[in-house]
Amino acid sequence: MNGTEVYLDHAATTVVREEAIEAMSRVMRDVGNASSLHATGRRARRYVEEARESIAEAVGAHPIEIILTSGATEADNLAVKGLHRLRHKENPRRKTLIVSPAEHHAVLDTARWLQSDEGADLAWAEVDRYGAVTSDSLRAAIATAGDTATAVAVMWANNEVGAISDIPALAAMAAVEGVPMHSDAVQAVGVLPIDFAASGLETMAITAHKVGGPQGVGALVARRSFKPTPLLHGGGQERQIRSGTLDVAGAVGFGVAIAAATAEMRNHRERVGVLRERLIARLRTVVPDLDVNGVPENDPGRTLPGILSVSIPGCSGDALLMVLDTNGISVSTGSACTAGVAEPSHVVLAMGGSEERARSTLRISMGRTTTEADLDALVEAFPEAVLRARAAAGVR
Amino acid sequence: MNGTEVYLDHAATTVVREEAIEAMSRVMRDVGNASSLHATGRRARRYVEEARESIAEAVGAHPIEIILTSGATEADNLAVKGLHRLRHKENPRRKTLIVSPAEHHAVLDTARWLQSDEGADLAWAEVDRYGAVTSDSLRAAIATAGDTATAVAVMWANNEVGAISDIPALAAMAAVEGVPMHSDAVQAVGVLPIDFAASGLETMAITAHKVGGPQGVGALVARRSFKPTPLLHGGGQERQIRSGTLDVAGAVGFGVAIAAATAEMRNHRERVGVLRERLIARLRTVVPDLDVNGVPENDPGRTLPGILSVSIPGCSGDALLMVLDTNGISVSTGSACTAGVAEPSHVVLAMGGSEERARSTLRISMGRTTTEADLDALVEAFPEAVLRARAAAGVR
Repeated sequence: MNGTEVYLDHAATTVVREEAIEAMSRVMRDVGNASSLHATGRRARRYVEEARESIAEAVGAHPIEIILTSGATEADNLAVKGLHRLRHKENPRRKTLIVSPAEHHAVLDTARWLQSDEGADLAWAEVDRYGAVTSDSLRAAIATAGDTATAVAVMWANNEVGAISDIPALAAMAAVEGVPMHSDAVQAVGVLPIDFAASGLETMAITAHKVGGPQGVGALVARRSFKPTPLLHGGGQERQIRSGTLDVAGAVGFGVAIAAATAEMRNHRERVGVLRERLIARLRTVVPDLDVNGVPENDPGRTLPGILSVSIPGCSGDALLMVLDTNGISVSTGSACTAGVAEPSHVVLAMGGSEERARSTLRISMGRTTTEADLDALVEAFPEAVLRARAAAGVR
Repeated sequence: MNGTEVYLDHAATTVVREEAIEAMSRVMRDVGNASSLHATGRRARRYVEEARESIAEAVGAHPIEIILTSGATEADNLAVKGLHRLRHKENPRRKTLIVSPAEHHAVLDTARWLQSDEGADLAWAEVDRYGAVTSDSLRAAIATAGDTATAVAVMWANNEVGAISDIPALAAMAAVEGVPMHSDAVQAVGVLPIDFAASGLETMAITAHKVGGPQGVGALVARRSFKPTPLLHGGGQERQIRSGTLDVAGAVGFGVAIAAATAEMRNHRERVGVLRERLIARLRTVVPDLDVNGVPENDPGRTLPGILSVSIPGCSGDALLMVLDTNGISVSTGSACTAGVAEPSHVVLAMGGSEERARSTLRISMGRTTTEADLDALVEAFPEAVLRARAAAGVR
């Protein structure tokens, strides 16, 4: 990153840890295919297995429960399609997938595709005004689905507004009905304590590049009982669930990064939580009519410390993003995943926000390299940027 | 790799190029999500697009035809499932997938799954005794399928025995019947001239780690007209065909490596072709009853220079691999992809070899770092290793 840039989009992808880069370079200089039987192959396999142990330990899972994938999108697809199809196959009456409307597109678009192409019904576990799925809303969705429920998918923490749902409580509720649950824990891992074994989840998606590891590697954490039809057929790697030559260096980078993130987790949460609360106060001072989407307090039980979503009446989030960008400040309007296409935030809409509010949304997300100086730069540029973005909105 | 090791398994995965490692490290130090709209995101996007151009140029394709994936297994799955399902959907009478029995498991297992789970019929384009698909055998398979053919999948060059099929001629034959063709070109790229535009193919799979790039990144090369149902739903990246945060560093490593491999291609082919021919002569001197699987001559039109498959009567390939391994020499019995499980070579069986011959197969594969000294070490260790492996076979 350029030294004069202020990067406040860590929830999209965060700065890769130097120790992960160095570990990956070392491994890449030591050739090997982890499926080969000879000494170099076995060494590659050992690197992967050590990484797998590190990942498992960070999320309270057994190493055999870690299925390495190309990222969280693949893990979410494997889990949601896998659980839904398995349960439908066991009993064709089951056809209703329970999902929250604030999920990441990797879950939401998968659910919609199961609806449009495989005849699934969707039952919505609505989010509250802070962006979290409550016990009441999951109970209502399960009641709607009745005995037709296939699976539940609720994210651990929301990527746009930071809202945390009480996943163990929700999974316990689903378990009473015998319905397996998946959680996209991409934003939670490395920030919140995650104990997969105690969570009651059947599957969970995580990814390396949100904890300071490389892009292109993630994992599906899945109980041994999870035996879906693979999405990728071939060499039979990863418990026959995910074929393809293992990315040895990627796995190593993931292992190093997630261990480091977990070790720093408590300090990180406290430091960044304070930054977030202070930032809200300062932004409100310069733009008094600003709305916070999600929980405004620094409450580590309810909101991620590093994500702050705000809506600014009378200006489009895109315009504000562009103006801040010309000041060297990188922020986002929400998820970075819609291939560069600007749309109103589906999360803010799901929280009951108006279309206007959903279009005037800005996500400021902080990571381990974020400094007070970054936030000073943002606060300094903010009022003028809002003025210009509002002027642009007025012109149109 | 350890300095005392002799690595002769480059077809499984080859030594990563230093320039690729350095380029990836640089990019990983420069944070960015290629789907983000701000300056850092646009810079990440530019890295990806430059890599895409480099990959496209190396295979005679347009950049828009390069769909980045997690590797060739994903690319093969996308292509084979995609083509088969699209053609079946267009006309439900079409249900026969034409495939060679010597394909990589990523194609073969996908085809068998379409057969077992989606009612596909398979028509086999048999290989000749050298491992290549001939015009006659494809003609016969197309005649068998008649107007029920969905697609053809024939690999450009075989990963176990090195046999090259004349893909442009086969694709032209398929085109006459209006049947789209896919080719797994993983082993051919960077070794043989590949011109996707002139090939007549609809889709082609390639991967970075066979040309000195990183593991975990590959590409489906696909004409613009190819619009399959995605295997991964989500953010809509890569022409909506392949969702998931782009692996920026991986793409860059792929681009750097494939450009270097293409630049060195002619020299590499000549140098390694001579090594291969000489190695065959020397191995025959020390083990006279050794059989070569595939084309024994150095014929760049018919066989890859870097792959030599041999069968040694009276000894199991696995045992020989293990004995050579104790001498610090890494070779393979075939594909490294069956999760470490030793099986008779399906390629040698498809070439008409006996079960015994298929079990006594050893693959020696050379790459750009292979030296005469590596081969000296192999030839020196070989007779004693064969004796020991034969003794082990006699004992059982």
